[in-house]
Amino acid sequence: MNKGRLEAFSDGVLAVIITIMVLEMKSPHGTSLASLGSVIPVFLTYILSFVYIAIYWNNHHHLLHATQRVNGATLWANLHLLFWLSLVPFTTAWMGENHFDSWPVAVYGVVLLLAAVAYFVLTKTLISLHGRGSTLARSIGRDKKGKISIVIYAAAVPLAFVRSWIAGACYIVVAIMWLIPDPRIEKKVAESTEGNG
Amino acid sequence: MNKGRLEAFSDGVLAVIITIMVLEMKSPHGTSLASLGSVIPVFLTYILSFVYIAIYWNNHHHLLHATQRVNGATLWANLHLLFWLSLVPFTTAWMGENHFDSWPVAVYGVVLLLAAVAYFVLTKTLISLHGRGSTLARSIGRDKKGKISIVIYAAAVPLAFVRSWIAGACYIVVAIMWLIPDPRIEKKVAESTEGNG
Amino acid sequence: MNKGRLEAFSDGVLAVIITIMVLEMKSPHGTSLASLGSVIPVFLTYILSFVYIAIYWNNHHHLLHATQRVNGATLWANLHLLFWLSLVPFTTAWMGENHFDSWPVAVYGVVLLLAAVAYFVLTKTLISLHGRGSTLARSIGRDKKGKISIVIYAAAVPLAFVRSWIAGACYIVVAIMWLIPDPRIEKKVAESTEGNG
Amino acid sequence: MNKGRLEAFSDGVLAVIITIMVLEMKSPHGTSLASLGSVIPVFLTYILSFVYIAIYWNNHHHLLHATQRVNGATLWANLHLLFWLSLVPFTTAWMGENHFDSWPVAVYGVVLLLAAVAYFVLTKTLISLHGRGSTLARSIGRDKKGKISIVIYAAAVPLAFVRSWIAGACYIVVAIMWLIPDPRIEKKVAESTEGNG
Repeated sequence: MNKGRLEAFSDGVLAVIITIMVLEMKSPHGTSLASLGSVIPVFLTYILSFVYIAIYWNNHHHLLHATQRVNGATLWANLHLLFWLSLVPFTTAWMGENHFDSWPVAVYGVVLLLAAVAYFVLTKTLISLHGRGSTLARSIGRDKKGKISIVIYAAAVPLAFVRSWIAGACYIVVAIMWLIPDPRIEKKVAESTEGNG
Repeated sequence: MNKGRLEAFSDGVLAVIITIMVLEMKSPHGTSLASLGSVIPVFLTYILSFVYIAIYWNNHHHLLHATQRVNGATLWANLHLLFWLSLVPFTTAWMGENHFDSWPVAVYGVVLLLAAVAYFVLTKTLISLHGRGSTLARSIGRDKKGKISIVIYAAAVPLAFVRSWIAGACYIVVAIMWLIPDPRIEKKVAESTEGNG
Repeated sequence: MNKGRLEAFSDGVLAVIITIMVLEMKSPHGTSLASLGSVIPVFLTYILSFVYIAIYWNNHHHLLHATQRVNGATLWANLHLLFWLSLVPFTTAWMGENHFDSWPVAVYGVVLLLAAVAYFVLTKTLISLHGRGSTLARSIGRDKKGKISIVIYAAAVPLAFVRSWIAGACYIVVAIMWLIPDPRIEKKVAESTEGNG
Repeated sequence: MNKGRLEAFSDGVLAVIITIMVLEMKSPHGTSLASLGSVIPVFLTYILSFVYIAIYWNNHHHLLHATQRVNGATLWANLHLLFWLSLVPFTTAWMGENHFDSWPVAVYGVVLLLAAVAYFVLTKTLISLHGRGSTLARSIGRDKKGKISIVIYAAAVPLAFVRSWIAGACYIVVAIMWLIPDPRIEKKVAESTEGNG
């Protein structure tokens, strides 16, 4: 079974998710600067969610690049990941429209947590298919970032009921952690695909 | 005529269907747990529909993988399938917003029934193009699951007027039947594509 | 310049158009059969528009299949076609919600007319790039169906103000004309691509 | 790392952006010509935004065509461009619904300006990856049009508060500048890809 359509379908779903979120940013009724200001909380949430979907697309791209083959379990592990990511437009809208109240902020984190777990399951499924000694397994390595992210999300959800901005800060920290380039990974991928071009 | 664009277009349509359904899950007005609770019936329907579209994508992926060529009849049989699937966001929204009342549940089943029939017609079109002895025909086999699904949907629609939860249970049973991995198919596909990979 | 991305982008746009139209079919407020009945005019319009977008995708698929190369003019001729087709969800919603009143029916026809003209321009652009004696030019031939469609649309628009059902009948006739398989084209495409497959 | 999925994802996002904008063009309540007239400002804005997204797709297509490879920085520079373009449906809706008032017109320009800057950054990222003497660098050249566009947008934003139609005229002028074919570029691309087919 080849990975081409898995990539194409995932690209399609992620492209739609990242774009329809903007539909939740309703154009304000007035035309003053103040009326534009009312959109700011939704806009900030939109930026955060855009960055998160972009990070997932990026990581997915790297992961599938190192993948040689897929099977039925992989397809479902991937669909499971897409399911949680497909809820991001909903949690984005709810959080943005309610100025970062506790429940919306916590639910936003729950969806991020479950998406991160789904991504972890996807990597495990791929590793068990390719073997522990495979290029794929080595390029994933110990997946420190993935595990740290899950811990931070799990901490952020209850913290949303103490101070919702603490949870928000956690989400931003995780996003920044992923945005910082990780030269080791690019190097490993480059090495492992040398000559496959 | 090659199958590349047929796959690309189907992937695009299925990716949009699976993702825009979430737009029907309107973010609740309040920020309490109770207001989130009001979304639960829509959310449960969303999960069911997501799983169904995912199953169709998965089966479509396997079917087209074993396909060698397509003709005009195939293109239209495929568009016919996409037509019924494109109605899923509508029936999902109607059923979810109305807490599983009889008519919405029955109409949800009618669309599933017609999509299953359309899929059956697509397989027949492909078999008649490739011949009864082809790899494709053998990998489809007697299509027991497809036929059982059609029978269950046909029974569920009238049952929705007796007790709508019975119909709902039927839809869940069919989804689970498809989710259980079927080692024979993967094996047959693996055998038949050996050396083409 | 290769045609791959032109096809991919067109597939994407057509997939989104054909799918978001269903968002205009709002789920009815009640749960009775009567409330479902109120959706029927929108549903009938949806079927018609779905068939039209499907026909365009089909024809576009055949046209690009016979195409060897594209240039800047082709890209813009193609975007021009996509522009008019992107208005179909709007005209579909307006016509469906207003039970086939004269103006919505006429405007629906104007968009079909301009899309047909845009398709005609696209074929001319491709022929002038490939030359009159090319496989592409021969597979398009005299394009009788394309020209007849334009004439019928041009007649239907004013007829919408006499009796809107006459215009509606014209749109259905054109759709049926394209749905009837045309063995000559498939044969010619098959011949011309023999050995390229 | 290959550019295939970068192109596929960008095509997906641009296809969704260009198509969902039409959802902001709500079908009018009445069925008279007057009620259609009320849609005209939104329609004119839609045309302008459609042309802009089409130009970006076109330029992106040419840019990636001349690209040999991509790295992590390229992926993020590309996502940064897609972010600003994803806001176009929002600014289109706000400007169209408010008959070209100053603030909406200025914000429309700010998004165009930031998208143009993001495109400029993307070209610089690609040039630094391929080297100053590369085919890619030569095909981009001094990028006069890109720089002129940025200057015009930067001038148009404050001018929106003097007379909003002046800013609107600026946006139209830039669009026309890009629509006029530039034979040098096509020639250079043709030369540089000769034999790569």
